[in-house]
Amino acid sequence: MNANTTLAPITGIRLGTAAAGIKYPDRNDLVVIELPVGTACTAVFTRNAFCAAPVQLARQNLELRPPRYLLINSGNANAGTGKQGMEDAVACCEGLAELGDCTANQILPFSTGVIGERLPTARLIDALPQAMNNLTEYGWNAAAQAIMTTDTVPKLVSRQFTLEGHPITVTGMAKGSGMIRPDMATMLAYVATDAAITKTLLQECLQQAVEPSFNAITVDGDTSTNDACVLMATGMSGVSPITDGKSAAYQKLVATVTEVCMELARAIVRDGEGATKLVEVLVEGAKNKAEAKSVAYTIAHSPLVKTALFASDPNWGRILAAVGRAEVENLDIELIQIWLGDVCIVRNGGRAEDYTEEAGQAVMDQSELTIRVALDRGEVETRVLTCDLSYDYVRINAEYRT
Amino acid sequence: MNANTTLAPITGIRLGTAAAGIKYPDRNDLVVIELPVGTACTAVFTRNAFCAAPVQLARQNLELRPPRYLLINSGNANAGTGKQGMEDAVACCEGLAELGDCTANQILPFSTGVIGERLPTARLIDALPQAMNNLTEYGWNAAAQAIMTTDTVPKLVSRQFTLEGHPITVTGMAKGSGMIRPDMATMLAYVATDAAITKTLLQECLQQAVEPSFNAITVDGDTSTNDACVLMATGMSGVSPITDGKSAAYQKLVATVTEVCMELARAIVRDGEGATKLVEVLVEGAKNKAEAKSVAYTIAHSPLVKTALFASDPNWGRILAAVGRAEVENLDIELIQIWLGDVCIVRNGGRAEDYTEEAGQAVMDQSELTIRVALDRGEVETRVLTCDLSYDYVRINAEYRT
Repeated sequence: MNANTTLAPITGIRLGTAAAGIKYPDRNDLVVIELPVGTACTAVFTRNAFCAAPVQLARQNLELRPPRYLLINSGNANAGTGKQGMEDAVACCEGLAELGDCTANQILPFSTGVIGERLPTARLIDALPQAMNNLTEYGWNAAAQAIMTTDTVPKLVSRQFTLEGHPITVTGMAKGSGMIRPDMATMLAYVATDAAITKTLLQECLQQAVEPSFNAITVDGDTSTNDACVLMATGMSGVSPITDGKSAAYQKLVATVTEVCMELARAIVRDGEGATKLVEVLVEGAKNKAEAKSVAYTIAHSPLVKTALFASDPNWGRILAAVGRAEVENLDIELIQIWLGDVCIVRNGGRAEDYTEEAGQAVMDQSELTIRVALDRGEVETRVLTCDLSYDYVRINAEYRT
Repeated sequence: MNANTTLAPITGIRLGTAAAGIKYPDRNDLVVIELPVGTACTAVFTRNAFCAAPVQLARQNLELRPPRYLLINSGNANAGTGKQGMEDAVACCEGLAELGDCTANQILPFSTGVIGERLPTARLIDALPQAMNNLTEYGWNAAAQAIMTTDTVPKLVSRQFTLEGHPITVTGMAKGSGMIRPDMATMLAYVATDAAITKTLLQECLQQAVEPSFNAITVDGDTSTNDACVLMATGMSGVSPITDGKSAAYQKLVATVTEVCMELARAIVRDGEGATKLVEVLVEGAKNKAEAKSVAYTIAHSPLVKTALFASDPNWGRILAAVGRAEVENLDIELIQIWLGDVCIVRNGGRAEDYTEEAGQAVMDQSELTIRVALDRGEVETRVLTCDLSYDYVRINAEYRT
C-alpha cells in the first residue's frame, strides 16, 4: 500500500476479484470493475507495434459505446498470439456480458503477464461468477493485489479536492515492475473520479496527466505490449458537469488526476524489478524536448550508470560518458554542469574543482536521489524517473518463466 | 589468446611493456609501440562528445606528422579531466619523445580505465624507460595483456595473403569488455600490416573495415569516451605500394583487414563483461539502414532479451516486444518473421504454428546463436553482435571502482 493509506472509494464503481488459476496458484488473478451507467471513460494505450489482442479490442470497444465493465487478468498478456488471441479476448468479453447483462462491446479487456502463450479462456470464464459475486466499492485494494505480476506491493492512491463546496475524489491503482518504459501509458493503471465531465475534456485531462507521470518513467527501457491507462468519471458527486477546458474546475481536476498519476508512476519505479534506489533524472537548459529526453533517457537506460547506482558508487564518469553519447548536435561540453543531488560533479568539461568523493558518496548513499544535467543551450527541461540495476533484476528476469 | 594462435609479427613494428602501477599492482599497464620511419598510420576515434584528452591529442598529432610511437596505458582513461587531462597527456608524450629521439607530436597517446581521475603522470613517465628497453617485434602478446582492464583474455589476430608472390601480413590486437557500443571504433584496437599503401587509401580501408566489425558490436550500449582503432602500414614487405582504390591488391588488403577487425570485434563481445553467450542479431528486409539498425539495437540492448538469453530461456515474446517498440514507421506485424537459429518463432503477428518449446530450447542452449528478424519491407540488412546480461555484469560494474 502507498504512503497515502486512506483510500477513498468512488461511489458507483465496484470491483470484484477471483482466482482463475491463470498462472499463479492460490491467489487472485482476475478483476472485474463495474462502471455505473453514464460514466465517461477514456484511455491511452501502448505504442508498441505488437500491441496485445486485449489492447486492440479495448481500443475498438471504447470507440463504439460507453463501457459498463473492465475485465483484467494477470499471469498472461495475451500478446503475440495472433488471430487466436483476438478470438480469446472476444470470448472472455462475451462471457462477462452474459453475467453483466450488457453487450460484449461494452466491456474493455486487459491482460498482463507472459507474452506469447494462449490465454486459458475456459478457466478465466469459469471464475467470472466469483468476481461478479463479490463486487464492492471497497474492492480497490484486493483488485490492486490481483493485477500484480512481479510487483512486490500494490499501488493505490486517492486525492480529494473541492468543487461547489462538495468533495471530489480521484482514486487510482496501477501495476508494473518490469518491461517498464511506457510510451503513452503504463503497464496497467486505472483512475476513477466522481466528477462529471465531457468525454472530450476527460480525454484531454488524461493526456495531460500521463505526460509527466507514466510517460516519464523507465525501469529497463522495454516498452510493453500491453500498456494501458484508463480514466473513468462517474459524475455521481452531484456537482455540475465540467464542460469548459478553461474553467477553474477543469484545472483543479487535471491537477488532481496528474497528482494521482505521478504518485502511481513513482510507486511503479520504486517497485521496479530488483530496484534499491529511486532516481530522478532532470535535464534542463535544452534547446528542445527531443534533446532533453535523449540526454535523460540515455542516462536512465545506461547499464553502467544503473549498476553504479546499485553499488552506491559516485562513479560520475559514467554519467558524463552517457551525456556525451546522447544524441545532441554540437554539444559544447565546456558549458555543461552535472549535479548529484546538490553536489556539482562536472563543470568546464571535467570534474568540478570543489568536488569531493565524500560529498558524492553522501548523495549516493541516499535511497532517493536526483541526477541533474544543465546543458546551458536553451530553456527546455524534462524529468525522468528510474531505478538502479541490481542482481535481483537479473534474477527476476532470468527466472521469470520458470 | 584467440583461436588463431600463430601470431605473425610485422617487421619493423616493435612493442614494449612496463608496470607503471597506474591502478593495478603487479602487472603491466603500459605499452609503447614503435613504428619504423615511413609507416603510414590512420585512426578512427569515439564520437562521444566527452572524448578523452588522449583522444583529442592523438587526433591532433595524427594530422600534423606521421607518428613514430603509440603510447598506451590501462587503469586510467584520462577522460572527464578537463584542461589538466590535456596537460597530463602532453607531459607523457614529451617524456616519451625524449627517450625516443623524436618530437612530442610524433606520439599518439591512448588511455583506458576509470573515467574522471587524474592520470598519475610521474609514475607513467618513470616506467617509460622499462618499456623502451624491452621493445621487440615479438611483443604483441605482452602488449595485448597490458592494455586489458575488465577483459579476461587478450585479443590478438593475424592473417596473411599474397601480393606479387610475397606474403603480406595483417596483425592486430584489441581490448574491451564493458562500456562497449563503439561508434566509429572500438575501445582500443591496433592493427598493423607490412603492405605499402597511400595514407588516403589506408584511411578508406580502415573505414570500410570498422563498419561491419567494431561499429556493429554492443555489450551494454554505452559508447566509451576513449574508443580508438589505429591501422598502421609499414610498407616493409617489399611489394609495390597500393595506390589504386580499384586494384585487386587494395581489395585483398581491405578484405584481410576487415577479417582481422571482425575477429577482434567478435573476441571483444565473447569476452563482454559477464557474458555467457555470443549472439548475432540479423535484421533483413528493411527499407533502409536506419530502421534495420533501430530494430537490431533495440533487441541487442533490451535488458529483458539479454536476461532471457542468460537464462537460456526461449522467451521469444520479449524479442517480439523489442521489435514492436523499435522506431520503425508503419510496421506491419503480419509480414514479420522472427527466427531463433533455424527455428521460426513468430509469423503472421503471433507465435509460428509449427513452433515448439523444445525446438526453441535447443537453440537457446547453444553458446553462440543468431536472432534473425525478417521485416519484408525492403532489401536492406544489418548485423549486430552482442552478448547476454548476467549476474556477473552487475557484479563487475558494481564493484569496478572498489
